[in-house]
Parts: sequence; C-alpha cells; structure tokens
Amino acid sequence: MASDGCVFCAIVRGEADASIVHEDESVIAFMDLRPVNPGHALVVPRAHAEGLEDLQEDIGVQVWTVAHRLGRALRRSGLRCEGVNLLLADGEAAFQEVFHVHLHVIPRFAGDAFRIGADWRVDERERLDRTSAAVRSGLAALDVARH
Amino acid sequence: MASDGCVFCAIVRGEADASIVHEDESVIAFMDLRPVNPGHALVVPRAHAEGLEDLQEDIGVQVWTVAHRLGRALRRSGLRCEGVNLLLADGEAAFQEVFHVHLHVIPRFAGDAFRIGADWRVDERERLDRTSAAVRSGLAALDVARH
Repeated sequence: MASDGCVFCAIVRGEADASIVHEDESVIAFMDLRPVNPGHALVVPRAHAEGLEDLQEDIGVQVWTVAHRLGRALRRSGLRCEGVNLLLADGEAAFQEVFHVHLHVIPRFAGDAFRIGADWRVDERERLDRTSAAVRSGLAALDVARH
Repeated sequence: MASDGCVFCAIVRGEADASIVHEDESVIAFMDLRPVNPGHALVVPRAHAEGLEDLQEDIGVQVWTVAHRLGRALRRSGLRCEGVNLLLADGEAAFQEVFHVHLHVIPRFAGDAFRIGADWRVDERERLDRTSAAVRSGLAALDVARH
C-alpha cells in the first residue's frame, strides 16, 4: 500500500513529524506544514492513492466525512475562522504537489492572504448544454467500465 | 426545505434553466454558469442547506460521492482535462457567493486561467502543535454537542 519516498506515507507510518488532529482506521488528518492560515488541515487516506482515479470510493467517503467534521470543528476551535474552504488538487495541472491524495480544510477570515482567480464569464446555454452532454458521456464511460 | 429566492432551489424545482449532468434522490449536478473551464460542474444537495454547518452528514457524503465520480468522468468526457480541482466555499470569507452549499468540480489543464495564491511559508512545529491542539478542542466541542 505504501509508496517509497512518499512523505504522507511516512507520516502514516509514524516516521515523519506531523501535528495530528484525527486518526481512524482509514484516514489521518494533520496540520499542513505550509498553512494558508493557522489550523489549515490535510485529510489523507492511510493507504497510498495518488488521486481521485485510484482512490477507493469508500475511503474517499471517509476522507470527506472527516473534512466535513474538521470544517465545523475549526469554527469551534478558538482559531480565527469566519469561513472554510475545502480544496482537493488532483494532478499536476490542478496544482497537486504531493502525489498522495489529500483534501485541504482551510479556515478563512476576511482580509487573509488566500486568493482564487479565474476568467469568470457567463457562458451561453448552448455551449453549457454541449459540455454537459460531454460530461454525461464521461459518466457513461465510467458505468461501462464498472459492468 | 426550499429557500425563497435561492437560485439553486429554483434549479432543483425545475424552475430555472440548468445544464444537468446528474440527478438522484438527494443531489443534483449541473454546469456552472460561469465556468473556470468547460465542464466545470456544481454538485448541490436538493434540500436547501447554506453550508457545512447545516448540511446533513449523509447528504454531504452523497455530494462528495457524485463529485468523486464527476472528477473521474471529466477525464473520460473528451473535454480538455489534465487534472481536477474540487472546491467548496463555506461562508462569505471563503468566497461563497450562492448560499446553498455546493461542491465545484473543475477540469484543469496546463496554462488555463485558474489561479490559487497564498502566503505559503513553512511553519514551526511548535506553532503547528499549538494550532492542532486548538483544532482537537473544536472536534471535542462537536462531540459534546452530539451527546
């Protein structure tokens, strides 16, 4: 299950330092070493998976469930938290840096340094309908692979 | 359950246009009207919930499960997708704009316009341990509320 040289696998094995906030059979959560804000946590499956493609569905559910709880816990932690972002980066093009899948739980407050930017423009319905048909074909391809 | 004036509730009721990619008993997914990239989807619970605080745990699990599948489907859709971001904004300080909880599923490719920025610096272990203790106290407060 473990991957040689993977820092998150080393944390799971207890061989690398981490400030842990949650542990269960399938998932571990600890403070990000480079926090966006104090309290920024990563939820990580114990078993090595690189991204969404090789993450087992039931383990993914546990990652989410812990992140949901941590998001609510941050608002009760005494740390500065007026909002929460959950963020997952799957693949280098999506800014993934550690290739052991992880879900960020980031406490936010007005005036902090976190920024998100994009070329946001209202799209035309015709194009949205075309892209939705493409996405549905991708879902159908997944279903075929399952059966 | 529905909230007057909520655009996502209007979509759930079929009273507002949407390019839908998935529907089940508890969740609906459709194309974001202002996509970061073509194929950008939103996964939304049918029942109105504003954010993580009032989102039922089991409904949240279904939101995640559909997002996990959509992330994998995007890579099989024929749309440009070299990576995927999942993003949830809980609260105005976290850049939430529509106050009906939703999980973004964003196809990504090298050179696209999506940007994430922060003041990323490696933190000291002592401070990380202190913040992790605060987060654990937040988790404990959740547990007390449950019992």
